[in-house]
Amino acid sequence: MAPKTDIEIARAARKKPILEIGERLGIGADHLLPYGHDKAKVSQDFIDGLKDRQSGKLILVTAINPTPAGEGKTTTTVGLGDGLNAIGKKACICIREASLGPNFGMKGGAAGGGYAQVVPMEDMNLHFTGDFHAITSAHNLLAAMIDNHVYWGNEEDIDIRRVTWRRVMDMNDRALRQITTSLGGVANGFPRETGFDITVASEVMAILCLAKDLKDLQERLGAMIVAYRRDKSPVYARDIKADGAMTVLLKDAMQPNLVQTLENNPAFVHGGPFANIAHGCNSVIATKTALKLADYVVTEAGFGADLGAEKFMNIKCRKAGLAPDCVVVVATVRAMKMNGGVAKGDLGAENVEAVKAGCANLGRHIENVKGFGVPVVVGINHFAGDTEAEIAAVKAYVEGQGSEAILCKHWADGSKGMTEMATRVAEVADSGKADFRTLYPDDMSLFEKIEAVAHKIYRAGAVVADGKIRAQLKEWEDQGYGNLPVCMAKTQDSFSTDPGQRGAPTGFDLPVREVRLSAGAGFVVAICGEIMTMPGLPRQPSAEVIRLNDAGEVEGLF
Amino acid sequence: MAPKTDIEIARAARKKPILEIGERLGIGADHLLPYGHDKAKVSQDFIDGLKDRQSGKLILVTAINPTPAGEGKTTTTVGLGDGLNAIGKKACICIREASLGPNFGMKGGAAGGGYAQVVPMEDMNLHFTGDFHAITSAHNLLAAMIDNHVYWGNEEDIDIRRVTWRRVMDMNDRALRQITTSLGGVANGFPRETGFDITVASEVMAILCLAKDLKDLQERLGAMIVAYRRDKSPVYARDIKADGAMTVLLKDAMQPNLVQTLENNPAFVHGGPFANIAHGCNSVIATKTALKLADYVVTEAGFGADLGAEKFMNIKCRKAGLAPDCVVVVATVRAMKMNGGVAKGDLGAENVEAVKAGCANLGRHIENVKGFGVPVVVGINHFAGDTEAEIAAVKAYVEGQGSEAILCKHWADGSKGMTEMATRVAEVADSGKADFRTLYPDDMSLFEKIEAVAHKIYRAGAVVADGKIRAQLKEWEDQGYGNLPVCMAKTQDSFSTDPGQRGAPTGFDLPVREVRLSAGAGFVVAICGEIMTMPGLPRQPSAEVIRLNDAGEVEGLF
Repeated sequence: MAPKTDIEIARAARKKPILEIGERLGIGADHLLPYGHDKAKVSQDFIDGLKDRQSGKLILVTAINPTPAGEGKTTTTVGLGDGLNAIGKKACICIREASLGPNFGMKGGAAGGGYAQVVPMEDMNLHFTGDFHAITSAHNLLAAMIDNHVYWGNEEDIDIRRVTWRRVMDMNDRALRQITTSLGGVANGFPRETGFDITVASEVMAILCLAKDLKDLQERLGAMIVAYRRDKSPVYARDIKADGAMTVLLKDAMQPNLVQTLENNPAFVHGGPFANIAHGCNSVIATKTALKLADYVVTEAGFGADLGAEKFMNIKCRKAGLAPDCVVVVATVRAMKMNGGVAKGDLGAENVEAVKAGCANLGRHIENVKGFGVPVVVGINHFAGDTEAEIAAVKAYVEGQGSEAILCKHWADGSKGMTEMATRVAEVADSGKADFRTLYPDDMSLFEKIEAVAHKIYRAGAVVADGKIRAQLKEWEDQGYGNLPVCMAKTQDSFSTDPGQRGAPTGFDLPVREVRLSAGAGFVVAICGEIMTMPGLPRQPSAEVIRLNDAGEVEGLF
Repeated sequence: MAPKTDIEIARAARKKPILEIGERLGIGADHLLPYGHDKAKVSQDFIDGLKDRQSGKLILVTAINPTPAGEGKTTTTVGLGDGLNAIGKKACICIREASLGPNFGMKGGAAGGGYAQVVPMEDMNLHFTGDFHAITSAHNLLAAMIDNHVYWGNEEDIDIRRVTWRRVMDMNDRALRQITTSLGGVANGFPRETGFDITVASEVMAILCLAKDLKDLQERLGAMIVAYRRDKSPVYARDIKADGAMTVLLKDAMQPNLVQTLENNPAFVHGGPFANIAHGCNSVIATKTALKLADYVVTEAGFGADLGAEKFMNIKCRKAGLAPDCVVVVATVRAMKMNGGVAKGDLGAENVEAVKAGCANLGRHIENVKGFGVPVVVGINHFAGDTEAEIAAVKAYVEGQGSEAILCKHWADGSKGMTEMATRVAEVADSGKADFRTLYPDDMSLFEKIEAVAHKIYRAGAVVADGKIRAQLKEWEDQGYGNLPVCMAKTQDSFSTDPGQRGAPTGFDLPVREVRLSAGAGFVVAICGEIMTMPGLPRQPSAEVIRLNDAGEVEGLF
């Protein structure tokens, strides 16, 4: 019999009513706003009442640089959460929401895999609780208000060539990347060039994920720079008077979503900022709420540790006053082989030497994470074809780095495959060994912050940026933005800016092509390479085969 | 003490849990998908199980031509529903969902007013249960797939100058009315002109409101014409293979939403097609479901009876096999005065002669509705300033027409102000006097159908249309679309195409400027005058004052 697919496993799940899941966390039915029978939002009132409680331990799951072999970061996050619950700990996971658009491009979606999944999987890959739609609406309301302001007399003297606020849609639609609006005559306004990004790339998304409450949300929304005046001074969203209405549109979206794992353990799924032009972590409000309700919270950050964990530490933790107690770095034997030079087609054959060679990538990530003062446990996400010798090679390498690697079989066995890992992670988190520190202080110059990441995390040689970029950073410092952290946008496939350079390269140049200020979210984006903020659909989009079958089930989405 | 505002009344409502409201209709908790504690969707399974039940009586609420004085059609619909329940009948109302975008333009929104409202009012004017967002997503997925098809080789040989499928957004954004897309080079596709409409103007919205189930929905979506080939043959959505994925995106939106009135009576709020380029009625699935669950269903149609009731009869009832048992025509003393030539500023003074003069407009609507074979009761929606003599004048006029007019005080008194009206409407609906017939048969030519509406409803002289329009209609007939009804798009302010012409004009020309085929929805739109499918924001949009107050309540939306 063929092994069950993810969707078959998810559909066979024995879900408990979401009210029951909430009850286990101590959330009363009045404070749980249901969306159907298996999803709910936690009320703001309830969250406000948690302030004085002690927080649980925070565990970050991150990974080596992603390879086409697959690492299973979300799967491991889910498995570890189930594993902790299975050994009698009160644990909760926090992950990001899926973007709708890309699900209609490549077969994808899903929240975890195998026997380590979050359900209801289909809803999570479609409209879920409408958070992203709310972000789209809020973002586009601001856009409409900007053009409307210009239309009715342009009191703020906006330079329409310098409107930086674009529109968004939760769709892969390359035709909208660059457009000309307001054509067709006087009644439609002043023609200008602009475009659409995908919703997850919106600064509003980043803000929703960093704001601590609705008041903070509104302040941050108001502080976004949307255009420049003819005198080059910035126009803020609050100048357009959009911050209040945007907050109203986002008030429900700010409440974290509660769902469950296949093993009926609680999972918060909230927010989904792009991991390149934003920080790529689930919402601060969900993480903090979970920490008040559980003894252990397992969360993840986008891409590999060079991007995701770095931003988790330097942006999310710094801004939210969070400090992780343990970091899990996910690796697979297959990915080590690819880092060691094996092609995807050849992964089936045992190759201990390639595994050993590829471990350099893992080693660099371990060292980097330790640099943040947090103890590391490596989780080897097991694949059926891994050989004993290959697994032993990874374990030996990690031990040589003064850490430990534990084999995790959650994909095949759920929490039963996670007992050793969960036990060890809980021990480490409880040990008090973590002494979290960010990589750089607030009061370092913006360029030095970029250099700090480049040198200490990527191990680059020189940071290359032309005079215009340095001048721009200096100008922002003069305007009072010098204390912000930097948000690095770089390929996730390598420590360098060359996606083909696997392993642990050193001494390469890091070119900074562009910098952008996200004044509301509170960071400066340093773009090192291409950055795509609106994807396109492939030649045969999965939308062509997505449909309801005769049983009313969704087919083709996974 | 000042009288309470609508929002103050709505906030003071003692809402019952939506499960309790559903229970009263016989919907079990398993079949009610909650969205928070006061909104729910009724499951498709439950609806499927109702097929063999008998249907209740259908009551349509329509109105005279709208004037700035306000008629209160929705308020009367809600009040009548409450009134019927108060006299011991099992009644349910069916109204449309509000569009989000316009609420950020003019102060507005609301579902009814005074003591005849549907709650939760705020949610209903914001994201509600996400139906419109789902429609936006489905519509724009199709748009992205069309451009993607062209991008990857254009196998269907689409003429990019003849892509008729635009994009939509639930926002008032004039800058998007006419745009050029795919600029910026090869990677972004082939530049072409297009634009955005507001979501309620989408053919997908009209289809959602006319489809009888998910299978019918998918077939209709597939039948939409989205472009023409270089050989001028139509390209359907099914040729782009978008119908399956669109149906998946719409599967939850197809389930009707249940909420409650201030008096805790059940209200279905579902769908909201534009009343000009579409038929302007709530969904067939909601109306039919309500008819299976209640003995009396009160529903409404957009604009005045010349547009709304005409389309309700000739499109919705014809297509869905529905037949109203009674029609309520809402009139107000104030609106009669305005129809009689009084300016809005002078409405405060008694003016019986003007009331009498204005009654001609009401009389025409009564006669028209009777033409559909359905008995009419006129509801006079009471305003505080109405005098006895003015009310008496309306009553006398209506009696002279062989009908009856009843004073309705639901705005001030809720169901208590509706006892007489509810009693009479129930009697009429139960009387079996209705003998519903459409205005024209399916097999009349499209142009003759336009003429039938123009002559019998509007009382126009000639229908003026140039040769191109007649040829277009002929072509559609040759292609097999001749059996469709026509969907008239005309100003709502007058029987004629001149908004300033109140009362009951006759003999005017009716110019048909353009015709459009909605092949999926199943009608041919005849555009008589300007048609705006994307509104703009006013000089001072209400968005500027919409915000959360310190109590976390929404301010400025109403």
